[in-house]
Amino acid sequence: MTLRVTFLGTSGAVPTTERSPSSVFVRREGDSLLFDAGEGTQRQMMRFGVGFDVSDIFVTHAHGDHVLGLPGLVQTWDFNGRDDPLTIHCPQGTASNLDDLVHAVGSTPSFPVHLNEVSAGDVAVEREEYEIRAFEVQHRTRAVGYVLDEFDRKGRFDREHAEELGVPVGPKFSTLHEGEPVELEDGTVVEPEQVVGDPRPGRTVVYTGDTRPVDATVEAAEDADLLIHDATFSDDMTDRARTTGHSTAGEAGEIADWADVRRLALTHISSRYAGDVGMLKDQAESVFSGETFVAHDGYELDVPFPE
Amino acid sequence: MTLRVTFLGTSGAVPTTERSPSSVFVRREGDSLLFDAGEGTQRQMMRFGVGFDVSDIFVTHAHGDHVLGLPGLVQTWDFNGRDDPLTIHCPQGTASNLDDLVHAVGSTPSFPVHLNEVSAGDVAVEREEYEIRAFEVQHRTRAVGYVLDEFDRKGRFDREHAEELGVPVGPKFSTLHEGEPVELEDGTVVEPEQVVGDPRPGRTVVYTGDTRPVDATVEAAEDADLLIHDATFSDDMTDRARTTGHSTAGEAGEIADWADVRRLALTHISSRYAGDVGMLKDQAESVFSGETFVAHDGYELDVPFPE
Repeated sequence: MTLRVTFLGTSGAVPTTERSPSSVFVRREGDSLLFDAGEGTQRQMMRFGVGFDVSDIFVTHAHGDHVLGLPGLVQTWDFNGRDDPLTIHCPQGTASNLDDLVHAVGSTPSFPVHLNEVSAGDVAVEREEYEIRAFEVQHRTRAVGYVLDEFDRKGRFDREHAEELGVPVGPKFSTLHEGEPVELEDGTVVEPEQVVGDPRPGRTVVYTGDTRPVDATVEAAEDADLLIHDATFSDDMTDRARTTGHSTAGEAGEIADWADVRRLALTHISSRYAGDVGMLKDQAESVFSGETFVAHDGYELDVPFPE
Repeated sequence: MTLRVTFLGTSGAVPTTERSPSSVFVRREGDSLLFDAGEGTQRQMMRFGVGFDVSDIFVTHAHGDHVLGLPGLVQTWDFNGRDDPLTIHCPQGTASNLDDLVHAVGSTPSFPVHLNEVSAGDVAVEREEYEIRAFEVQHRTRAVGYVLDEFDRKGRFDREHAEELGVPVGPKFSTLHEGEPVELEDGTVVEPEQVVGDPRPGRTVVYTGDTRPVDATVEAAEDADLLIHDATFSDDMTDRARTTGHSTAGEAGEIADWADVRRLALTHISSRYAGDVGMLKDQAESVFSGETFVAHDGYELDVPFPE
């Protein structure tokens, strides 16, 4: 079950030759999801070959470096004759601005573009095997983070034990695995609990967008498999991080530590660290013992199941 | 006297991994001028190192692939504390749209942004040594092309002949070169015509933006040193060029031939020709005998004086 994260843009407010503005692409099995779409996102999608069949875009906040790629993307889809609707999820109070942006130039696209305002706690999207919820973050404007949360999977089926109990190989295996009892030819009833283990947890990916370090992120990211956190600044710029509504690498590390996540990706890297981001990693690792990396444009990672 | 053209974006409506949407940067001695600003222009400026001290942006028309880089550029200038005013020249009737676009997200920039609507024939900018005029083109929307036209330079000063006439080496040389007569110690008057040649023509660069082949371009580009012309399609797609308001490579070549320009740059290349643009060059060269090239992102060229 694919859960692949591709960083399309990892710069702070001002891009660099190496880093494009914010955008994270997530492929979850057959679904393509985009989190933020800074200027140039469509070319980054081409460059890193992630495909264009995106159904939903999740906007953390309506600052230019997170949304200026939207109109170009919509124009390109329009140009290519897209019919499928597109939903742009965004914080409460920002839909009107984003609608203006999408329609700022050119005509109305050939396909429906829905804007869906979400508040912290809202489920933006619910699919058969996962949901995406908004959570509260703290930036200088209306902003949310997003959690992609897979539902529990069925427990492991103990095939060997089922055979021992006399269940014939075949459709009865599936019935048991789906949680229904089966009756054998001799009248014995086998209950699913006898051959199916406990439900196994799915995977969780959390993306904060721009934010100060906040408790709500710790809560949203508890035991997450991947936390993608704002790390605009180095730890010597805590004051600047505070006044601009961002986090330092060390602060991101603390959140990751408190939430006990598996992996931490640092992103939204200020242009002042172009070429040397090693210290950001060091600062996060000084407080967080899990796997840590500084994301870069084109970095792709498969998120494995916890077990 | 520098006149350097750098192609920042040479794609058609849809960018490719190799080509960014339309933008042409021109450095004319101390002045930095931008013609169109498609999505990603600011990163292309960084990538090709042209600098950011742009005073004027000349928009040919308000389609997304020519203007979606504006808000990001303005945001970055704002972020970097720019004070100098910026003027965005644009076709009559498009200023309001572009103003909306620039202000679509985020706050009002720290520096003044003026929008200057121009019609064909208007001088958008006049400087000491050149002017930039709008000319009529034909696209599916309100659109103009732009001519950068250097004024005649002073004629060549015949230093040898001046000395023969008894003019002493020194300030009298400058006076004559500036067009004023001088009186020698013996009372003889030397007229500038005796030692200064005819005024020498300046250079002319013409940028059409998106257009059908039109007479107005021939007129605007007469004897131009460089004509940058829409060549979205190959000659086998003349019908498509007609319905979409673009030109084929051969049509661009014809305009160049009729205007008798020195060099022809083909741009706004459709994504369908990714990787193979040789035939576009061939088609233009089959009708135009001057120097022809298919522009690509990062292509930089110094425009020499005609002589």
